Amino acid sequence: MLSCKGFGATSAQSPLAPISFSRRSPGPRDIAVDILYCGVCHTDLHQARNEWNGSRYPLVPGHEIVGRVTAAGSDVTRFKPGQIAAVGVIIDSCRKCDSCLAGEECYCIEGPTDTYNAVDRVDGSITQGGYSNNYVVDERFAHTVPENLSLPGVAPLLCAGITTYSPLRHWKVGPGMKVGIIGLGGLGHMALKFAHSFGAHVVQFTTSPRKREDAMRLGADEVVVSTDAAAMQAHAKSFDFILDAVSANHSLDPYLALLKRDRTMTLVGLPEQPPQFSVFSLITKRASVAGSMIGGMIETQEMLDYCGQHNITADVEVIPMQKINEAFERLLRQDVKYRFVIDMSSLG
Amino acid sequence: MLSCKGFGATSAQSPLAPISFSRRSPGPRDIAVDILYCGVCHTDLHQARNEWNGSRYPLVPGHEIVGRVTAAGSDVTRFKPGQIAAVGVIIDSCRKCDSCLAGEECYCIEGPTDTYNAVDRVDGSITQGGYSNNYVVDERFAHTVPENLSLPGVAPLLCAGITTYSPLRHWKVGPGMKVGIIGLGGLGHMALKFAHSFGAHVVQFTTSPRKREDAMRLGADEVVVSTDAAAMQAHAKSFDFILDAVSANHSLDPYLALLKRDRTMTLVGLPEQPPQFSVFSLITKRASVAGSMIGGMIETQEMLDYCGQHNITADVEVIPMQKINEAFERLLRQDVKYRFVIDMSSLG
Repeated sequence: MLSCKGFGATSAQSPLAPISFSRRSPGPRDIAVDILYCGVCHTDLHQARNEWNGSRYPLVPGHEIVGRVTAAGSDVTRFKPGQIAAVGVIIDSCRKCDSCLAGEECYCIEGPTDTYNAVDRVDGSITQGGYSNNYVVDERFAHTVPENLSLPGVAPLLCAGITTYSPLRHWKVGPGMKVGIIGLGGLGHMALKFAHSFGAHVVQFTTSPRKREDAMRLGADEVVVSTDAAAMQAHAKSFDFILDAVSANHSLDPYLALLKRDRTMTLVGLPEQPPQFSVFSLITKRASVAGSMIGGMIETQEMLDYCGQHNITADVEVIPMQKINEAFERLLRQDVKYRFVIDMSSLG
Repeated sequence: MLSCKGFGATSAQSPLAPISFSRRSPGPRDIAVDILYCGVCHTDLHQARNEWNGSRYPLVPGHEIVGRVTAAGSDVTRFKPGQIAAVGVIIDSCRKCDSCLAGEECYCIEGPTDTYNAVDRVDGSITQGGYSNNYVVDERFAHTVPENLSLPGVAPLLCAGITTYSPLRHWKVGPGMKVGIIGLGGLGHMALKFAHSFGAHVVQFTTSPRKREDAMRLGADEVVVSTDAAAMQAHAKSFDFILDAVSANHSLDPYLALLKRDRTMTLVGLPEQPPQFSVFSLITKRASVAGSMIGGMIETQEMLDYCGQHNITADVEVIPMQKINEAFERLLRQDVKYRFVIDMSSLG
């Protein structure tokens, strides 16, 4: 076993606090990494506080991991000690269902193995996340990182990045398309960067007029304050695709009204309440409401390579591990531009 | 003006009763038809009782119309007096937007003109429907009827038929696909006939075990009683497409669980409550919930011709006009197999 230290929750009510635990020793196909940076995803907060139920304690969150390889098993081909590696939201899957064979491991028919709070397919232990000093993972679920990218800004690519890159690719966002991004937070700001980079005309929707300037800087061609009914109406029936990256409860109807016929609005945020819209919003234009999560392993590597080629990283605020509880509170107030990333050297 | 008689509502509370009214005289591009049969759609009941608001009284319902041409304007090319013609849910549109130019007049960006309770684009009058002795319509929004088909069974094709034919075609239902139809009513029984005819493996979902035999007769390969959790579970993640033709409130989650990755469930029913489902049902398989309404004019004609070639009509119970209020009550109890059709000769 590998001894580890990190920050974890011991119950839904307890703040994150220093914790010692162990991981399985690396096998022949595994790499071990010393974690350098770990992004702070809203999911971490949901899971630490058992807001989706099913949390198992002690629980160490974190699934936006960048680290340095310290050991590589005998069958490992893509990594060597000393190299930088990245680990995202899932670390295993059945590997034999249609989705896995199609490279869509996140949609594994048996369910993928989450990076934390899941049963490890190898040894049956409960996986613990990246708010810690190390990680052990099959190389098939690890990624190489382009050398030109700043590592703190890379960490959020593993969840916020791929969660927005994947649907924008799947729905073929590119030149000649008018694309809406709803919400300018951790996910939204990555969606904006990617959609702009893919050559679409990008409209950023936000409830905060104060975010206008930032949205333009991040790549928006237009910014619409969604509470401005006239501004919304001016875009009626004009969008080719809309990505909804909002995790607060909201009606989809005002946005469905902006789609052209036969277009899709895809949800990647996870509000507490179920999606709310009228069936008429769909049937009057043969519209679709879809959902999408992260991406497969090949696509995640493709995204990281794309980011290297186009110099794309997340906008981050680096914090020490000891400030995680404060960061959770600021996250709830949307007081972050646009992702907290833990500098794991602070663990000491 | 053309004088007309029919059955209409004078308020949301009043039953349908005999009524006299007038229509515009046929213009050069119009045909006039003596109505032979008119189907009874649930929309007729909603509109007669102002359940969607916006009903204008007096209101004559009916948008599943089959009749005999009595006059054809000088510019009419497809119809001659004496011929059978059919009219469906819409009778005009802007004719110049992307949707209209694509032959998708039902998705007209300005909104199509409904067959009743709409402002006529020609003379500004309020359109009145097919629970009456005649109709006047631009030939572009009328259809020819294959001679081999029984006319009472043709009438429901103009709404229930095209509403199910169109999405099954749009989502390319055919051989090698496993397709679910939810609900075995006016829409559902047509969806079942079409999906079977298109060569798919069709599973009929119903809450009524007593409908099993009928569903098999109508073309189902399997019937699943949706309240049987084990029977539902046996079909998990196995469907290529699901058409939801239910107009009662229900959760979509049990059906979304049955879709394969990257597949669509399309809503054509109009329950009172908005669609209910968890966002996790979508994101865990990149699923879509879509909506669809009737079809364009070219597709409606294609559907009628297809029905002629494959001898497909609706299963109907023919009633005299005077029984319409009783039929409405039976409709609410789902006591009809599977569509009421009014024999308009009963008007006298």
